[in-house]
Amino acid sequence: MSEELTQDDFLGGKIKIWQPRRGYRAGVDPVILAASVPAKPGQSVLELGCGVGVASLCLAARVPDLQITGVEVQADYAALARRNGAENAMPFTAVTADLRALPADLRQKRFDHVIMNPPYYDRAAGTVSDDAGKDIAFGGDTPLGDWIDTGAKRIGPRGYLTLIQRMERLPEVLDALVGRLGAIVVRPVAGRASRAPELFLLQARQEGRTPFRMAPALIMHEGDTHQCDQDSYTPLVSDALRSGAELPILP
Amino acid sequence: MSEELTQDDFLGGKIKIWQPRRGYRAGVDPVILAASVPAKPGQSVLELGCGVGVASLCLAARVPDLQITGVEVQADYAALARRNGAENAMPFTAVTADLRALPADLRQKRFDHVIMNPPYYDRAAGTVSDDAGKDIAFGGDTPLGDWIDTGAKRIGPRGYLTLIQRMERLPEVLDALVGRLGAIVVRPVAGRASRAPELFLLQARQEGRTPFRMAPALIMHEGDTHQCDQDSYTPLVSDALRSGAELPILP
Repeated sequence: MSEELTQDDFLGGKIKIWQPRRGYRAGVDPVILAASVPAKPGQSVLELGCGVGVASLCLAARVPDLQITGVEVQADYAALARRNGAENAMPFTAVTADLRALPADLRQKRFDHVIMNPPYYDRAAGTVSDDAGKDIAFGGDTPLGDWIDTGAKRIGPRGYLTLIQRMERLPEVLDALVGRLGAIVVRPVAGRASRAPELFLLQARQEGRTPFRMAPALIMHEGDTHQCDQDSYTPLVSDALRSGAELPILP
Repeated sequence: MSEELTQDDFLGGKIKIWQPRRGYRAGVDPVILAASVPAKPGQSVLELGCGVGVASLCLAARVPDLQITGVEVQADYAALARRNGAENAMPFTAVTADLRALPADLRQKRFDHVIMNPPYYDRAAGTVSDDAGKDIAFGGDTPLGDWIDTGAKRIGPRGYLTLIQRMERLPEVLDALVGRLGAIVVRPVAGRASRAPELFLLQARQEGRTPFRMAPALIMHEGDTHQCDQDSYTPLVSDALRSGAELPILP
């Protein structure tokens, strides 16, 4: 990781995030993820692969009195996550750990929510970046099935898994989930209404019995083409990004 | 099957279909399926579970010079399919067979396209209808995995599978397909833009290497609510249903 940091506003300035100027930089995806988590005040949350803590802190900004734990394999990102939690005065702790070998105290806990934004690219199939931190964040070497497996084990009774991932990995995610969690809902995320959705949000529930459902796509931008560099977010997305509004996975 | 028949127009009267007045009656689903098949003149097509032949005959009406074979386990529906093929003067033959035990001559052939609209309900989980024909058509006792398996085996090099099914069975279909066919595209089909899609079209290709993709949803009706009993189909769907226009799975 570059030692040079920037401090960036999220949720219209409700939270401020230190992150490396180079390397992996958080975009809108963790914000959309946080907006889709149906957490209630007082609940517990585990974020796998929390990076500098954007998703966890966006969630903490919307829902009061959560107890949020982040797990991050890269020590420098985990340190920034702790700093971001402290400076934003949020109930968030981040531990440095490989999600395949969680510390004993985490392995003994169950959470009301597990959330994750796993790397989008399969490292085995991709090229390697100059920046090791960026490389792990974009295409980690932990198989997606291990993320799902670790997450599913840590969800308490009737608890929720919420994740965001690239569309091309939907079959892989479903394969890992079916038979473990139920009430699976997939919400495609598309740049524009006319475009093929490139990402999906997914929610599933421990002991859920509702059959698989798909939600209408979440459309990020208005119009069919990029008009200019000005704001073109759809109202729902704008409310989530600027004001920290909730985005229920089934609208 | 009731002995009483009706003769109904499809594709704005381009084809006329005899079907039982009671029992399973073809709706728009087989028409949408046919519209999504990327067949070219002169190619061969196998339809598994062809019923009275609506999908096959809609496809034959759009693409000239196809050689289409339908397989139908219910002899009386297969007989109607043959009659419908002959009366519409279409190059369509229907054989009475269980798709798990195809006749030897079909087992020796490969097709450019395999199409299917398998029963939507899992018979093991559902209730039984008064009408045996309707019962088999709505919730057959052939596992969905057997449909996919039989279909995949009959697709020639670079050939396509195209199917339509209820959304809740998407994980089951993907599970059966992944590793057998590639270039999978799922197109959700929703009654209205604001509604959760209840069906999906799926296309996959023998030897396809493109990663999994999702297309923007096919929206059947205009507006957010049912206005009246008059026509409210979206233009794309109306063109497919009334004029037999193609509906490419990736628009």
